[in-house]
Formats: sequence, C-alpha cells, structure tokens
Amino acid sequence: MADIWQERKRKLAEYMRGNGIDAAFISSPMNVYYFTGFHTEPHERFLALYIEAGGEETLYVPLLELTAAEEAGKVQRAVPVSDTDDPFALLRSGVTGSIQTLGIEKNAVSVLKGEQLQAVFGGVQFADLESFILSLRMNKSEEEISKVQYAVDLVEQVVDYAAKHAVAGMTEAELTAEIEFQMRKLGADRPAFESIVLTGARTALPHGRPGNYPIRQGDFVLIDIGVQAGGYCSDTTRTFVMGEGTKEQIKIYETVLAANEAAIRRARAGIPLADVDRAAREVIEAEGFGHLFTHRVGHGFGMEVHEQPSVSGHNQSIIEPGLLFTIEPGIYDSVIGGVRIEDDIYIQSDGQARVLTRYPKTLIHLGR
Amino acid sequence: MADIWQERKRKLAEYMRGNGIDAAFISSPMNVYYFTGFHTEPHERFLALYIEAGGEETLYVPLLELTAAEEAGKVQRAVPVSDTDDPFALLRSGVTGSIQTLGIEKNAVSVLKGEQLQAVFGGVQFADLESFILSLRMNKSEEEISKVQYAVDLVEQVVDYAAKHAVAGMTEAELTAEIEFQMRKLGADRPAFESIVLTGARTALPHGRPGNYPIRQGDFVLIDIGVQAGGYCSDTTRTFVMGEGTKEQIKIYETVLAANEAAIRRARAGIPLADVDRAAREVIEAEGFGHLFTHRVGHGFGMEVHEQPSVSGHNQSIIEPGLLFTIEPGIYDSVIGGVRIEDDIYIQSDGQARVLTRYPKTLIHLGR
Repeated sequence: MADIWQERKRKLAEYMRGNGIDAAFISSPMNVYYFTGFHTEPHERFLALYIEAGGEETLYVPLLELTAAEEAGKVQRAVPVSDTDDPFALLRSGVTGSIQTLGIEKNAVSVLKGEQLQAVFGGVQFADLESFILSLRMNKSEEEISKVQYAVDLVEQVVDYAAKHAVAGMTEAELTAEIEFQMRKLGADRPAFESIVLTGARTALPHGRPGNYPIRQGDFVLIDIGVQAGGYCSDTTRTFVMGEGTKEQIKIYETVLAANEAAIRRARAGIPLADVDRAAREVIEAEGFGHLFTHRVGHGFGMEVHEQPSVSGHNQSIIEPGLLFTIEPGIYDSVIGGVRIEDDIYIQSDGQARVLTRYPKTLIHLGR
Repeated sequence: MADIWQERKRKLAEYMRGNGIDAAFISSPMNVYYFTGFHTEPHERFLALYIEAGGEETLYVPLLELTAAEEAGKVQRAVPVSDTDDPFALLRSGVTGSIQTLGIEKNAVSVLKGEQLQAVFGGVQFADLESFILSLRMNKSEEEISKVQYAVDLVEQVVDYAAKHAVAGMTEAELTAEIEFQMRKLGADRPAFESIVLTGARTALPHGRPGNYPIRQGDFVLIDIGVQAGGYCSDTTRTFVMGEGTKEQIKIYETVLAANEAAIRRARAGIPLADVDRAAREVIEAEGFGHLFTHRVGHGFGMEVHEQPSVSGHNQSIIEPGLLFTIEPGIYDSVIGGVRIEDDIYIQSDGQARVLTRYPKTLIHLGR
C-alpha cells in the first residue's frame, strides 16, 4: 500500500481547493486512519489530523501513542498531547495560514469541540467534509479488499465451526459464546458488531439479541456475524435448520436464496443500486412474501460495518467499480421464523461483481 | 427502583429552572436510559428525550423499538421515528412552549445535529447539560450498586477461571479468548472494555493489547477485565506470576499491594480525592518506584467504564457518599514487568468505603 496515503490526501487537497476550504480538522479515528495509516481509539483523549490547503499537516496524538503514530503514520509531523496539555492551544500554535473556512466532520465533531474550534480560529465558517470523505472511502482498492477478504475468510471459518457444533438444546447465548471464542482464537480483533444468533420464531427479529433460548428440533438457526481484523470488517449471515424442517420452512429458504442470487446476478457497474434491491424483492414478491421482507437488501461496509452506499430501493446512484456492499434479503414470518442469506460483494475494476463470501448457501441441516 | 426515574427528572427540572433552561434535548443513549429506564443503541437512528420546563416530556425512539420503549420506559409519551420520517420535523411538532435556551449534551451532540436543532428552534441558545448530568450520575444509589456488585461478582468468577486455567505456553490471545468465552457463558452482555491480558515484560504496558505472546515460566500475568451486565460495569485487575517469581518481582508486587491497601484505607467521605491518590503514591515512592507509577490511582465508573470522578492527585474535590470508583495503583518496570491491583470501591451513606471486589490479593502462583 505504497502511496495510497499520499493519493488520498491529494484528493482531499483537491476537494478543499475546489470548495474554498482553507484547512481541514479531521478527528474521527477511522478517518484519521484513512489519511495517515495510524489507527487508535483515543476515547476521551485528543486525536486530530490538521491539514492546511498550503500542504502543512500535523497529526495530534495522545502522548502515550506518539511512537506508534510515528512508526505507522504517514504524516509530516506528529505532535504529542499529554493529559495536562490544552490541545486547542497546541492546535492554535500550529496554524500558519489565515483560515476563513475550516472543513470538519460535522457528524463527528461535538458542539463543544465546535465551540473550542471557534475559539481557536476566531469566527471561522465550518464546511462539512463528512460526505466527501465517505465518498472517498466508498471506493475501495484491491489492497483494501484483500484485507476484507481476510476478515470474510475468518468469519466463514467461524460459521462453519458453529454449524458443526450446534446441537438441539444449546441456547442462543451458548452458541454465541462459542462463536465469539472462535473469532478470538482465529485472530479476530473483535466482533464487527453484536453477534446475532437466533432460533425458532425469534429468527424473525431482524435485529434480535441472543438470549437463553434453546435450539429445538425443527428450528431455524440464524447466524449473522462479522469480525474486525486488520482494520477491516466482514458481515455475513447464514440460516440453518435443526433437523428436518417443514415444507413451509424450505419454501421460505428457497425463496430467500433465489432472491439473494438474483440480486447478485444483477449487481454490476453501470446500473442503479435500487435495481439490486429490486431484483431480490421481485423474487420474494412473486412468491407472495413481499410484505415479510421488511428492510433494504444491503449496505456498504469496510473499516466500519455500516458505510456507504445504501443498497435500497430509494438509492438511484449508479454502481461504480470499487463499491463493497452486502446483499442480504430476508423473509420474516413471526410464526415459522425468519431466513436471511447475506453475502459480501465487491465491484471490480472491470465492473463485474466479485462475491467474497464462499460458504455454501444450500440449506444445511444441523445436528446430523 | 420504584421512583428513581421521577426523582432524577425532578432534579433535572430543578436544575433547568435554576439555570434558565426552557427545554432539554437529551440524546446520549446512557443518559436517555438514566432518565427513562429504556436503553438502546440507536446507531445512526434518532433517539432523544425532549423535556420542557413546563413538564411535557417525549421520548423519540426508532420505530422498531417503540414497544420495547413503552414497556421499559418511564415516560409520558413515546413517539416512533421511522427511517423515512424527518425526526426534526417530529420534534418541532412536539414543541409546545417558547424555547429560548435549550439544554443539550454539548459533548454528545454533533455540530450537524446542533445545526438541525437550530433550524427547529430558530436561533436558540445552547446550554450544556453534560456536567450536571454526569454529576447526577456520579451519585450512585444502593439499587445501582447492587447491579454493579452483580457485574463485579461475575467478572471475579472469570478471573478465578483464568487463574485456574492459565498454563505456561498459552498465549495472551488464547487466554483472552477463554476469558471472554466465560464472560458470555456466565451471562455478561459484553466485555466492559477491551480485555487486557498481558505477560512478561509486556505487563509494563498500561494499555497493552493481548497478542500472540506465550506465557513463560516466571512471567507476570496481568489480567485487567470487566463486564457489562444488566446495564452496569465492573473493572478489576489482578496480577499473577507463572511459577515461582523472583525476589524483584515479589518486591514490586508487595509494594503495589501495600499501595492499594493504603489508598483503600484512606478512601472515605470528607477527604479530597487527591488524598487517595497520594496515599498509594507515598507507599510506592517510599520504595523508590515512584517514577514507575505513571497514571492516576483510579476513576469513577458505573453505566460506563469511565465516569466521574477522576481519582488523581489534581482532583481536590471532596469525597461524598454515593461515589463509585476504582483504586488501581501500578508499578511498570520495562524489564521485570508490571503489576497492577485494581479494586472497586463504593462510598456508602455512612461515609465509609465498601470494597466490592473480593478476589484475593495475595500473590497467586499460577500453573501449580
């Protein structure tokens, strides 16, 4: 990943020039990482990348992390901030130009910090950098995808482990414990989000939390998990059935699978994102389950588990190479249960979709 | 916990009247929980408790959570916000009084949301509610402490499990996986923070992350973990030695233990917090290790793992009944390794300190 940091900062500088932004104050840890290669979670401590349009750049980091920042960070200058320093005084002393307009992440900077920046820059205008940075981040390189693939491969090993170890009588919470134990053992930094492991009719809860509910014979078992590893996330869902499964369950499963495959077939550069949602929805509607598919078909992800784009029927944006998103149609019947099948898709430079997830999608019967 | 929600809102209303605040807009999930009894992590969705000085109160919740909010929430009125609603339009239609000054959590509300609130309330003044709410939250009731005690007891079972299962050759990452597996199995919702499990010289890193480093004979093994369970956190540290341990190791351990005990003996209502830090530091300095105790002696916690007060040499605030904080002196030698011993302390209504942690503090030799 030789000069991607320079290239990202070049694009930011170009955007700043084009929009009359004199300096940028970037403080969300993910965005700091995106431009510097240095990642930290500062909690209440001060972390910011300050860049002037003239090219001056300074990374303000907690004192304890100075060495790590200098080793990892592709920045001209790192300034340590100790717990007794006033970070805004340090920031002020690093300002060299006359700053009329300051680019900030309006969704990440607090009102309090905004007031402190106003005090430093005296009546500055704020311009929002957030959507521009998110649009930059939306375009993923092959180097980034190799990290995502690592996180995907890791979580698929965990799904496989769960499928092989789930037995009737085990509770959702117990299976979740096993799953997160495997994530750790395989080298994940952490779950990418709260693991969703549901059984029986509870599989119809799109965001249900694992509880002390035992898996019974004939239950659907829905596993929606992801890991963060090496700075990138995965996010995948497979639904299983414990034992045989009824005709109704199999009908729902086959319909979701067909919807998942139709959406993947549709996904490529040059078509609106809404068409991908449409492709899945048409299959589900044709079988009479349309009212039970209650969410968009997918979402972008990357360093975070929810990023741009939204893959919904409302998003008419045209798919471009570099997008990474999930395809996860579902049918949620409050009596029979729910099925969701989620894959991770990358739009390659040739415009074709590459499916990063490889775990089988034919219905797997557990406990055999 | 009969009417604690009413009592908290009564104090807030009193503060608002005393400070000329016409309405409060509370949006951090923990603070919403603190005033309503309803907890959720809305992620990008809209969550806010809006209270007018006149007494009108409305909880705005994501549509999917309306039922849960109505069941758990001690509020007059809950208004659902769907993904296609404009939450600020809903908020505007709920405003009944003339609002000149709006109380917000300035550290939790983003500049973007601040602008949206300005649009709703037309040129309103913002007043900060954050430090007042944090000071309310700092004062814990016995009901809250019983939840903290549950989280403490749970994590001590995990420490005990780890001590009994750690063997030479096992890596930090493996032991961490075992630890978090036990947390889950015992019913914790999640780790309260990134578990710190370190060995050998790496124990000298106050915020080190577990890696693929095997525990060797003679190593210190430092375990700093906590859980979130039932809405409250625990946070405890014990340091062990694998096998015998050298005289130098035992000297460091005994010094930290004496410092921990001295600080606990000093902690009671009526003295400055700084004195608690001082008590630990004097013991460590007397043994010539002062330069190796590089952080404050403790911090408040509760619903979150870092809350008020800061137990540092700079904090001259007087200890009052209701405070809950850690006492965690440490000595970090980059060659021999580090020792930290952390307990959780509650200042009772009689002004005496109650130690919630009960796990033994005499040096335990692992692998025997």
